[in-house]
Amino acid sequence: MKLITFTHNGGPVRGGVLDGDVVRPWFSEDRDPVLAFIASNRSEPALSSERVPLSAVRLLAPLLHPPRVFGIGLNYREHAAESKMAVQSVPTVFIKLSSSIIGHEADVLLPPEATQPDYEAELGVVIGKAGYRIAAEDWKQHVFGYTIVNDISARGVQLATSQWTLGKSFPTFTPMGPHIVTSAEIADPHTLDIELTIDGEVMQRANTRDLIFRIPDLIAYISALVPLQPGDVISTGTPPGVGLGRTPPRWLRARETMEITVQGVGLLRNRTRATD
Amino acid sequence: MKLITFTHNGGPVRGGVLDGDVVRPWFSEDRDPVLAFIASNRSEPALSSERVPLSAVRLLAPLLHPPRVFGIGLNYREHAAESKMAVQSVPTVFIKLSSSIIGHEADVLLPPEATQPDYEAELGVVIGKAGYRIAAEDWKQHVFGYTIVNDISARGVQLATSQWTLGKSFPTFTPMGPHIVTSAEIADPHTLDIELTIDGEVMQRANTRDLIFRIPDLIAYISALVPLQPGDVISTGTPPGVGLGRTPPRWLRARETMEITVQGVGLLRNRTRATD
Repeated sequence: MKLITFTHNGGPVRGGVLDGDVVRPWFSEDRDPVLAFIASNRSEPALSSERVPLSAVRLLAPLLHPPRVFGIGLNYREHAAESKMAVQSVPTVFIKLSSSIIGHEADVLLPPEATQPDYEAELGVVIGKAGYRIAAEDWKQHVFGYTIVNDISARGVQLATSQWTLGKSFPTFTPMGPHIVTSAEIADPHTLDIELTIDGEVMQRANTRDLIFRIPDLIAYISALVPLQPGDVISTGTPPGVGLGRTPPRWLRARETMEITVQGVGLLRNRTRATD
Repeated sequence: MKLITFTHNGGPVRGGVLDGDVVRPWFSEDRDPVLAFIASNRSEPALSSERVPLSAVRLLAPLLHPPRVFGIGLNYREHAAESKMAVQSVPTVFIKLSSSIIGHEADVLLPPEATQPDYEAELGVVIGKAGYRIAAEDWKQHVFGYTIVNDISARGVQLATSQWTLGKSFPTFTPMGPHIVTSAEIADPHTLDIELTIDGEVMQRANTRDLIFRIPDLIAYISALVPLQPGDVISTGTPPGVGLGRTPPRWLRARETMEITVQGVGLLRNRTRATD
């Protein structure tokens, strides 16, 4: 099942199931319908009889107000090397503020404060069932589904101090989507091709089999410290090829189109735009 | 005006104004009444005629779900030195998860994963009016009031990687309160004595005049990157005297009572409790 959050004809925010090119909405008065559905723990949303062409809706991020977006740093060995940072014995976990989330086809805004802006293609894991001290082998019980995250990072801000959150949380710096694919549709999230292009040129190409800390490890580690909540997103880290790792560094410029594809999950496209 | 969040006789969460030892509640159906009042931008809550003795209510944290709690690292020179970290040219800003907030007199839980637990007395600034790129000289327009924060930190987790959030966000690791004092009652927040005791012994004693980045600087810096929202808390950093800075280090143990006093703001007391 593919779940989207959308608006249609200037109406309220709604949740829908994607059936090919057709959207089947459900009724909800929640400000974040997909989050509310995940938290409800029901197996399927109560779809209305409406059918709306996908081309007629405006996609928003599948989760608008997830409780937390946990980012994972340095989780592909070659990316750690290109960043000139050491791989740690435990995952490096940071927060991206939810206020930075945008959806598919929304613009990534580059204000002058966001120095050295960079892209990071990532597989996002959406937590379904809450849990504290989740055993690694029980990880599947707590995963609702998967999405794509572009962990946009203003390196000039991110690396000005030791703490990364602000440099990764400018408004629009967390493109997410286009939808959430439920876990039943992904036989093994550790075998997925992941790729990012800019204006068609491949910048990152890898496979999630190269994750250092895999999804069971991430869920076990985080939940041993901080209980996980329905709708939490764990963005699993980026493979090599980011602008920071290039010689010379290659920063995002205005009017570039980033496309991230994750095999079986989808394609997330966002364009950069300079702002004053 | 001193604002509290409380429950009484097992009833719902309510907001109230503290008038000496008397609580004057207002009517609200919000899950976070003081946050809703701040966001309403009204000058005073619509108090009911009820009067409840302070001794009869259970205080909660004044804000239960603030949008964000921004922590500031290394913001007193001697604390940076005792932490063996360099003072940066811009503030070091991290996030404490809101899920870690507790109120006055609630226990700080120390599970075995929270290795090397430590205390940090801090003045907390509560944002009133939202703002993006707030000019430093306009800071007062955006401050609703002040509270006290104990930035409890499991150093073993905080310093296991470069990113501090998880080690500072175990459940109960953000005692806050006991109330919010509105800004009109604090002539100058940069002249306040701040002190933390454990079982009566003074561990930290300083004055907010020693802040490296003062409140106008913090508001200007953060809001230039991430727009501030009503109810955001900026915890301004801790003075010297934490357990990490002692020789040998002095970690929190079970059944210790921490009291933080900030001049004109209040007294926040919490006791540690070991958990399995």
